[in-house]
Amino acid sequence: MSESVGVLAMHPQMHNLFPKPPRRWRWITGEGDVNDIIDEHGSEVEVVLSASIEKLDKDMLSRFPRLRMIASISAGFSNIDLEECRSRDIAVTNAPGLNSGDVADLAATILTSLLLRLPQSQSYILNDQWVAPAGPLRHSLRNTPVGIVGLGSIGQEVVKRLTPFGLDLKWWGPRAKPDAVIPYIDTLEELADQCLGLVICCRPDASNRHLINQNILDRLGPDGVLVNVSRGSVVDETALIDALKSRRFGAAGLDVFDPEPTSSDHWSDVPNVILTPHQGGSTYETLFAQAQVAQSNIESFLDGKPLQTSVL
Amino acid sequence: MSESVGVLAMHPQMHNLFPKPPRRWRWITGEGDVNDIIDEHGSEVEVVLSASIEKLDKDMLSRFPRLRMIASISAGFSNIDLEECRSRDIAVTNAPGLNSGDVADLAATILTSLLLRLPQSQSYILNDQWVAPAGPLRHSLRNTPVGIVGLGSIGQEVVKRLTPFGLDLKWWGPRAKPDAVIPYIDTLEELADQCLGLVICCRPDASNRHLINQNILDRLGPDGVLVNVSRGSVVDETALIDALKSRRFGAAGLDVFDPEPTSSDHWSDVPNVILTPHQGGSTYETLFAQAQVAQSNIESFLDGKPLQTSVL
Repeated sequence: MSESVGVLAMHPQMHNLFPKPPRRWRWITGEGDVNDIIDEHGSEVEVVLSASIEKLDKDMLSRFPRLRMIASISAGFSNIDLEECRSRDIAVTNAPGLNSGDVADLAATILTSLLLRLPQSQSYILNDQWVAPAGPLRHSLRNTPVGIVGLGSIGQEVVKRLTPFGLDLKWWGPRAKPDAVIPYIDTLEELADQCLGLVICCRPDASNRHLINQNILDRLGPDGVLVNVSRGSVVDETALIDALKSRRFGAAGLDVFDPEPTSSDHWSDVPNVILTPHQGGSTYETLFAQAQVAQSNIESFLDGKPLQTSVL
Repeated sequence: MSESVGVLAMHPQMHNLFPKPPRRWRWITGEGDVNDIIDEHGSEVEVVLSASIEKLDKDMLSRFPRLRMIASISAGFSNIDLEECRSRDIAVTNAPGLNSGDVADLAATILTSLLLRLPQSQSYILNDQWVAPAGPLRHSLRNTPVGIVGLGSIGQEVVKRLTPFGLDLKWWGPRAKPDAVIPYIDTLEELADQCLGLVICCRPDASNRHLINQNILDRLGPDGVLVNVSRGSVVDETALIDALKSRRFGAAGLDVFDPEPTSSDHWSDVPNVILTPHQGGSTYETLFAQAQVAQSNIESFLDGKPLQTSVL
C-alpha cells in the first residue's frame, strides 16, 4: 500500500507525540476545533488516534464513513462502541501495561506518606503545635500490615517499591494467583481487618463499584489509611469524606475521583488527605511509549501484519 | 555488686522505656521537675540516662558528685562535656545506628513525594485549576538523577528504598568508599549540577555548616528538590526560603531545622514544602531498642564487663 492514509488525532496536542510519523500518514487537519475538522474532512479519515477520553459512539463513528481503524494511545477503550466497530469491521487497538511503573511510583509514595502521617506533621508545624524540642513519637513502618487490592501489573510494581520499607504486605483480588510473592487473604473484609493501610489498584468494572465502602473503612479503623489509583468509582467517596471528617478514619490519598475533575468544594475542609489530579500514569515518557505502540499497530494494520495489542 | 545503684532519667517519660528495669537500679525521683530532683537528690545519682537533648556541661555534671556513668539513649552525644567526663573518669555510652531505617523511610518518601510534585498537585486541585478531564502531564521518576549526600548507614538505607523506583542514584561525601553500590561524584558542586534532587543524610559537624547554600541550590535549578534529614545547620535555611519564594528553586522537604522547634512564621507563605517535626528517627520501636542498648551498657558497666557502644 503506497498511497497516503488519512489519520485524525482526536486532540491537536497528540501530533507532538509523533515527531516522525510514517511517510504514508496524512494528518487530517484544518481550521477550528476537532469538530470543525470532522465536519469538513470526516470522509477522508481512515485511522483515528484516540486518547480514550472522548466518546467514539455510533453517532461519532458515523461521521467517518471510510474509517478502518481506531488506535487508542491509552490502556482504556471503554469510550469506544466496540459493537459498532465490529459490525463495520473497524480494527481497534490499545496500548496497555506501559504506565504500571509510573502509577506504582505514585501509589507507593502516597501510601508511605500517609503511614508517616505527613499531612498531620505539616499541620502540626504550621499550627505552631511544635513547642518542645523533641517532636511527637511515631510508629516505625517496619512490619506495618498493608493490603494490596488487585495484584495485576500495577499491584506487582507497588509491591516491588514497598518491599524495602519492611511492611507486612498481603493482598486480595477476585482470583487468587499461585505465583504471587505475598500472601493471599480470602476476602476483602478479612484483609481490611488485618491491615492498617489499603492500596487500591484493581481493574475497575461493573462488579467493583463502591467496593471500598463504610464497612471496609470501619474495619481499617480510625488510624487506617487508604490509597486509590484505580478509578474513582471503586471507592464510595461520600462515605470516605464523612469518615475522614468525623475522624472515624485516618487518612486518604486519591489520584482518582468520581466524577473527574473533582471540585475543591468537596475537599477544602476534609483533614488528612493527599490529592492528585489523575496523574498516576500521565507521564511524558509513558505517553511517548504508548504513541509508539499505536504507531506500530497502525503500520502493522496497513501492511496486513498481526497487530501488537488488538482489542478487536 | 549487689547494693542498689541510683539512676536518674533526665526526662520523666524515659521511665516508660524500661518496663522491667534491673533489680539493682534505684530510680532517683521526687517532687517537681528534673531540676528540683537534682537539687535534692543529685548526690545519690551514680548513672544518668540522657536523651542527648539536655546539656550535660561542667556545671550540670558538678551537681552529681558520685556520677560514674552517662548512658545516652540516642546516637548523639554532642550535649555531653566529654573532657570533663574524662577528667572525672565518668564512662559515656550511646546507642548508634538503630534508627537508620526509620530515618531512611522518611527521607525516601519525602524525596519521591517532591519529585512527583505532590504539594503542587494538591494546590492544583484545591485552587480549582483542574478543569479539563485530563490532568497535567508529569515526568516519570525513571532515570531521574538524584544525589545522596553522605553514604553512611542512613544513606545506604535510603538507596535501598529508592532503588526500585529506577532513579539514577549517585553520591558524594568527604571520603569516597570503595564498596559503595552507586557511583561516587568528586565534588558536591558536580553532584548538584548533574542531579534534580539531593537527599542530605550526612553526619553534621563543624565543617559542614551551611554546606547546602545558594550556590548548590542554583546548580540544582528551578525544578530542583532538596530533602534534609541530617541537621538543620547543614542547610542555609534563609537562602533556601528565599530561593523557594522567588521560584528559583523547586521544592524542599525538611525534617530538621535551625533552630528547633521551627516557627510557623518562617513557612506559612513558602510554597512547595513538606515539613515534619524532626521525627525521622523518633519511633517507639527505635526508642525501645535504644533503651535496651543503654540498659545493657549500664549492666555491663556495673558488672565490670566490656561496654557495647562506648564513647568514652
